[in-house]
Amino acid sequence: MTPTDISAALRRALSLAEQAIGLTDPNPRVGCIILAPDGRELGAGHTQAAGQAHAEVMALRDAAARGHDVRGATAIVTLEPCSHHGRTPPCCDALIAAGIQRVVAAAQDPNPQVAGQGLARLRAAGLQVELADAACEAASRELNIGFFSRMQRGRPFVRLKSATSLDGRTALPDGRSQWITGEAARADGHAWRRRAGAVLTGIGTVLADDPRLDVRLVPTARQPLRLVLDPQGRMPPGARILQPPGDTRVIGPGRADLPALMAELGAQGINELHVEAGPTLSGAFLDAGLVDELLVYQAPMLIGQGRPLAELMPLSGLEAARRWQWVEATSVGADLRLRLRPT
Amino acid sequence: MTPTDISAALRRALSLAEQAIGLTDPNPRVGCIILAPDGRELGAGHTQAAGQAHAEVMALRDAAARGHDVRGATAIVTLEPCSHHGRTPPCCDALIAAGIQRVVAAAQDPNPQVAGQGLARLRAAGLQVELADAACEAASRELNIGFFSRMQRGRPFVRLKSATSLDGRTALPDGRSQWITGEAARADGHAWRRRAGAVLTGIGTVLADDPRLDVRLVPTARQPLRLVLDPQGRMPPGARILQPPGDTRVIGPGRADLPALMAELGAQGINELHVEAGPTLSGAFLDAGLVDELLVYQAPMLIGQGRPLAELMPLSGLEAARRWQWVEATSVGADLRLRLRPT
Repeated sequence: MTPTDISAALRRALSLAEQAIGLTDPNPRVGCIILAPDGRELGAGHTQAAGQAHAEVMALRDAAARGHDVRGATAIVTLEPCSHHGRTPPCCDALIAAGIQRVVAAAQDPNPQVAGQGLARLRAAGLQVELADAACEAASRELNIGFFSRMQRGRPFVRLKSATSLDGRTALPDGRSQWITGEAARADGHAWRRRAGAVLTGIGTVLADDPRLDVRLVPTARQPLRLVLDPQGRMPPGARILQPPGDTRVIGPGRADLPALMAELGAQGINELHVEAGPTLSGAFLDAGLVDELLVYQAPMLIGQGRPLAELMPLSGLEAARRWQWVEATSVGADLRLRLRPT
Repeated sequence: MTPTDISAALRRALSLAEQAIGLTDPNPRVGCIILAPDGRELGAGHTQAAGQAHAEVMALRDAAARGHDVRGATAIVTLEPCSHHGRTPPCCDALIAAGIQRVVAAAQDPNPQVAGQGLARLRAAGLQVELADAACEAASRELNIGFFSRMQRGRPFVRLKSATSLDGRTALPDGRSQWITGEAARADGHAWRRRAGAVLTGIGTVLADDPRLDVRLVPTARQPLRLVLDPQGRMPPGARILQPPGDTRVIGPGRADLPALMAELGAQGINELHVEAGPTLSGAFLDAGLVDELLVYQAPMLIGQGRPLAELMPLSGLEAARRWQWVEATSVGADLRLRLRPT
């Protein structure tokens, strides 16, 4: 087996892990490839829904189903195998029991219950253990950015989504916003919703637009939890957001403390929180410094008078503005997808 | 000489023509390469300042200076050689007199005084004449987009420049705008000013910001004419825009008819007009449908309350908004350079 075999297998494993998006929450998205000493692929798999098999077990099962003997083989995994009993037995034990000789992991698990203990346990059992290069590690972390956030900061990774004109308007002055961006951008927005453990909005948006906020323009195995901040208890019983598919939780009076809510959502296993709200709630998240990523679909049009992306606290000067950095600016249909993160 | 030699020479000729930006106005930016029958380069040149030699003559002179005989050679030009006596004698005659056997042109000249007559004259003199492929033609037209606009529409190509935050603000509510975008974006903006025959602003911007609106952050052989729309005659005599380098014209009372002004500027040889104005004048250009390109530097920051990119007439609905298309979204320092043109 050459280093090129390993690199190629890491890329395949990352690609498998991507297929776990919208399936494994609150568990991380992990892929695993098992390679024979001569570099042939013996098995492959990715994490299943929570409570079901992890990537390593899926790959071992795949190899068994193909009739391969994995003794002496190498397991390529995108995240450190778990060493603790959760809803499933530890993957480390499965790899050791199967006779795997060598493990290459793209990233260490940020879960304090794993945190290097998985790799240590494999080493203690006599397996050869290696970490992949920094690019693979970054790709694995990026794929699980919400899981890392929850494990390391105790709160979800917050992605704030907006759709604006080139001049930053999200709607006409009377609130009409259908449609600023095109179909491709709307479908792409659903793909980002699908990544999330929960989609959050405010009661103002519910009352004005009656949105469903489910994932329907892209296929998904599960629906994110829908959350509505409704401090005055104004939720109409017939609102579409209360209907299937998926669950909805209305966060009622006295619960407007956003940092506390973030901690609560973290404790409840929400890795990525997708905020799709009006200018007031968007502004509250931004002013509180709780936004980890801006996801803005920018339409090639000028609106002039209209509603802003966010109502923010006045700035004392431009130097007081929070600075972001571009993650991407990508064409999606006739629109641009812009992503930014705090500097 | 192979087709590959011709292609490579066309690319070099286009690259030479780019060096004529900021030099040749109101004449087009043209490059010329002379190739020997075996594909060797004998001479190269680009158009000089108005009244001085055109690209073909520069290339012939270069070949002579290098001691090369150009009889039987091929001239590769990015624009059809001129056939009329302007401030210089026709380039066609120079090519014919020099004994050039073949001419490959990237684009036909849109000047009604040339318009295929140059190529016809070369053919009548027994030269072999070809047009290059569509990609080269597009590159040549793009380089001379203002010249084509003036020749074909009788008015300049209008580029409206703005610098905004992600939420479309160009300044704080009190007008402070220094600096939303970074140094790299500001220098890039000067490179776009340099392309222009004239830079236009309104008296409001002069009174508020006292800008110079010259080209100083990039080297240039000439300064664009500076134009200030001042319908109420409020120009302060000490304004920096009235000072060197470069000339300034104040367009006074009774001259607010933008379409008529565009025709006038076209007649005066302005190929590209660079509009760098406040929201009122920007809105007037946009509402009049006079903007051929939006050049927006977008900074990775949110401002919240602030001044808009343009004050536009209210829209009856989103479907009434003019649609644009993205030409590019490119990182410039920490900012994005966005360019859009009408669909």
